Amino acid sequence: MLASAASLLNIQVVFLDVGADAPAKQVFSSSQHIDGSFKDQQKIAELASKADVLTVEIEHVDVDALDAVKKSHPNVEIHPAPETIRIIQDKFRQKEHLSKHSCPLGEFMSVDATSDSIKSAAEKLGLPLMLKSRTQAYDGRGNFLLHTLSDIDKAIDALGSGSRPLYAEKFLPFVKELAVMVVRSTSGEVASYPVVETVHKDNICHLVFAPLRTPDAGLCKRAEEIARSAVKTFEGAGVFGVEMFLLENGTITINEIAPRPHNSGHYTIEACETSQYSNHLRSILSLPIGSTSLKVPASVMLNLIGVSDSMQPIKDVCSKALEIPGAAVHLYGKKDCRKSRKMGHITLVAPSDAELRDRLRPLLQTLPTSSSSLEQEKEREKEVAVYTPVKPSPTHSHPQPLISIIMGSDSDLSTMLPASQILSRFSIPYELTIVSAHRTPARLYSFAQSAAARGVKVVIAGAGGAAHLPGMVAAITGLPVVGVPVRSSTALDGVDSLYSIVQMPRGIPVATVAINNSTNAALLAVRILSTSDPRLLIKMEEYMKEMEGEVSGKIERIESGGWGNYEVKKH
Amino acid sequence: MLASAASLLNIQVVFLDVGADAPAKQVFSSSQHIDGSFKDQQKIAELASKADVLTVEIEHVDVDALDAVKKSHPNVEIHPAPETIRIIQDKFRQKEHLSKHSCPLGEFMSVDATSDSIKSAAEKLGLPLMLKSRTQAYDGRGNFLLHTLSDIDKAIDALGSGSRPLYAEKFLPFVKELAVMVVRSTSGEVASYPVVETVHKDNICHLVFAPLRTPDAGLCKRAEEIARSAVKTFEGAGVFGVEMFLLENGTITINEIAPRPHNSGHYTIEACETSQYSNHLRSILSLPIGSTSLKVPASVMLNLIGVSDSMQPIKDVCSKALEIPGAAVHLYGKKDCRKSRKMGHITLVAPSDAELRDRLRPLLQTLPTSSSSLEQEKEREKEVAVYTPVKPSPTHSHPQPLISIIMGSDSDLSTMLPASQILSRFSIPYELTIVSAHRTPARLYSFAQSAAARGVKVVIAGAGGAAHLPGMVAAITGLPVVGVPVRSSTALDGVDSLYSIVQMPRGIPVATVAINNSTNAALLAVRILSTSDPRLLIKMEEYMKEMEGEVSGKIERIESGGWGNYEVKKH
Repeated sequence: MLASAASLLNIQVVFLDVGADAPAKQVFSSSQHIDGSFKDQQKIAELASKADVLTVEIEHVDVDALDAVKKSHPNVEIHPAPETIRIIQDKFRQKEHLSKHSCPLGEFMSVDATSDSIKSAAEKLGLPLMLKSRTQAYDGRGNFLLHTLSDIDKAIDALGSGSRPLYAEKFLPFVKELAVMVVRSTSGEVASYPVVETVHKDNICHLVFAPLRTPDAGLCKRAEEIARSAVKTFEGAGVFGVEMFLLENGTITINEIAPRPHNSGHYTIEACETSQYSNHLRSILSLPIGSTSLKVPASVMLNLIGVSDSMQPIKDVCSKALEIPGAAVHLYGKKDCRKSRKMGHITLVAPSDAELRDRLRPLLQTLPTSSSSLEQEKEREKEVAVYTPVKPSPTHSHPQPLISIIMGSDSDLSTMLPASQILSRFSIPYELTIVSAHRTPARLYSFAQSAAARGVKVVIAGAGGAAHLPGMVAAITGLPVVGVPVRSSTALDGVDSLYSIVQMPRGIPVATVAINNSTNAALLAVRILSTSDPRLLIKMEEYMKEMEGEVSGKIERIESGGWGNYEVKKH
Repeated sequence: MLASAASLLNIQVVFLDVGADAPAKQVFSSSQHIDGSFKDQQKIAELASKADVLTVEIEHVDVDALDAVKKSHPNVEIHPAPETIRIIQDKFRQKEHLSKHSCPLGEFMSVDATSDSIKSAAEKLGLPLMLKSRTQAYDGRGNFLLHTLSDIDKAIDALGSGSRPLYAEKFLPFVKELAVMVVRSTSGEVASYPVVETVHKDNICHLVFAPLRTPDAGLCKRAEEIARSAVKTFEGAGVFGVEMFLLENGTITINEIAPRPHNSGHYTIEACETSQYSNHLRSILSLPIGSTSLKVPASVMLNLIGVSDSMQPIKDVCSKALEIPGAAVHLYGKKDCRKSRKMGHITLVAPSDAELRDRLRPLLQTLPTSSSSLEQEKEREKEVAVYTPVKPSPTHSHPQPLISIIMGSDSDLSTMLPASQILSRFSIPYELTIVSAHRTPARLYSFAQSAAARGVKVVIAGAGGAAHLPGMVAAITGLPVVGVPVRSSTALDGVDSLYSIVQMPRGIPVATVAINNSTNAALLAVRILSTSDPRLLIKMEEYMKEMEGEVSGKIERIESGGWGNYEVKKH
């Protein structure tokens, strides 16, 4: 992927990798490529002799070799700095570094591969205890979650029987895993991509949703700031993947940092204005950093992980993907498929969260499992239900609503139902609930505050009498709010509601529709969504044509049957 | 670009092209590539012996060789069909074919390279007369526009002195050039990409804007239908570029068709759910055709054409592009730069037309010219003014408005001005004008009908009394319409306007704000746009914070100075 980005800029790249047909060498033809390991000092020196700038795509590179290059080839820039890679490739040193720079972390401590040392760590950090190899650990390899002290020997055994240094982390029961890609320029400026939600399966990155949706309105800003601050503490340029845990109480801790393009940033190729690969190149070459903005409303990346030596199950998922709009297949050209090997990925983009999940569902359903056991089948069903749930019934809320219909009281329900029917007709995902400004003010505040972060685009609020709900929602969220004046008292015929809703002070608008006319509120919401989805504009025009047709039919009936016999149909 | 698309699907491709470092061979490493010309029968046979499917990226290929392959390699599929390429590579036969299938064309006729034949054509089709070589013509080579009969000898000379067959076309004074990429599957189904506007300079494709903006609401649909119908008449699979002329009276005629990925479809790589290259592969391999939808609001492609043997001016434009958000540079890795040679292209994407043109402007200003003459400098200034005009002044309409502020009468202007100030504050491009429902009903109709096709997203309409303007606009366009009731008569205090605007019948909504409150109308429009532009939501939240801060200041003043001395400031 770096090779493809480089070729677009006519930048010559020489790759050091094993084999003549390593993936990058397939898509970047050069007689200069080197056949060898990234741990081979001599090969690294050979690579340096052909380059102006050296970079890495894996942090387990031989850093002593990079240091040697620094001396032997003083004109070759190395990004990120060898010292950065040295800190990061030792997870314990990485944590010490981050801790020293006041980055938020869970508790951790050094342990030896002895029963006593681990016991004392368990006493301090509690059980379960996360034991980790300090080095050479990735995709969950080198991790052991110790549930009971009686498993200590098993743990020591699993973690290399003392051959590799260890450390311990307090186990954090996170509610979500987050990640942010950060670009660091040669002058030390940082730019961050949007926060994503990552989902791991068997400790390997499985799904990446961009952007993150959450009821916590300030979460994304906090996560981006933490990621940028952490990357600022390292030397050298490049993109960095910052993996984080979100805890139940809203706290964010850094899990680990990768000093290179990262799996959680693959989505940027199709979904952002500049891909992580283009930005990695730009940063290490002291070129301007490209915009990190999303250019699509929603995207998800699905890793294609081998389940056996057969490539066929992976190909089956790709075939399915070719049938799905917005799906981009990336196969890596690796010669052999193996269990747990990353063979490629698929990125989906979509005009909305709901459509994204609809597009993802058949892929999750096609994804191979390592066996066809009932257990794995249930696991898959559960996964589909969690990440791509289907709306439970026509009259229940959609799990990824674009529109939120709220009303002050259940007595407004009959007035608001036509809105839900219109949205169903236009296939717009919506939710419907009661939020009372006067009786549930706390709920009103949290609803309005979180709506945008949850992915809601328009709020339709119906209220009667001293109808405060629409205006109060509009005062808390920046989203467009459509107000439906409900005619709740016969005394004032709904004019009380209308004035309460429409006569908002300067600064806070409510889009008011006619008294009791929730149909128009929903149609207005569809028109609002159509400003970013041209398909909806076409549907709206068809709807208007249909209305025209209905009236034409009535004209015809008056003309053919005469007005004497004409009966007006009630809605 | 086809090579890159193929490698993502692990599809093996063998290229026949001259040289070992032809662009495609650089990004698709294979020991199988063939060094030779696409006109070399033997090389084409050699290529066929290595392939399951043959395709072309240029229509000037030797079709006899393809026919020979059909016989010698019956299991090799050729797409598009050789007969299709044969028809298309002879522009006169192409026109005859399209004419036979009732595709819209300008008048054309066969001519010989003789003075008499050309004179008689000029008599029939008029002057100026477009003389064209039937074959081997591209990028304007092989075209001669005959202005006067005295130039006939010059024309014959320029067009090969009779060595190549000619034909004549009636000169069409088009107002715009359009293009549509069409994908044709092996089973004959067709799918079309959005209509784009193409701009040629010195007969070479220069700019491609996607999607097309036009005041003619039905134009895109008509153009797509014409393109799909035309491609349906050909045999074999693949993508086809259909180039069209739009005439003053709204008529569309087909100019010519390319049976391959086309320069006018390069924008699809960054801007559509599936690129033209991915879809070319999918179609010739009988895989499902990918979605042709745009995934961004606006995009433009700029060709990088050599102006001399020096690559430096091209590199300078690329450097500028790296500073521009949403710009993707594609350099083709061609070894030598030459005048009029396509060395690469840049695709820009943006959240709006206005932002797209702002991003394009510095590129057009950096674009090299073949000389630095005053004339070329003026030419460039003209181009910048036409394609990326700057808003003439703060109180004039923006050339690419997202919001349209209209009012029924100039007497409403003072009421509507705050709306314009809010939009300026949020840097939203808008236009402002008078449309009177009662005094200019025809203008009302054409305004409302064309608004969406011109790129307008929201209409803000102010009206007083029997205020019909907002509702009538909403009845004609599917866009969201925000209505501002103007208090024009003291008799009813604006309640007349409010009721006229808000009490719309079911089916046609108007988003009504408070009487005279055009500030809120504009804020509502910003909120509507923020549903597709997250930056605006952040700005709106800042605006709301600022209002909160202002009130906090007043609280402070009451507390510190006491309310006895407190003076209420008027706005």
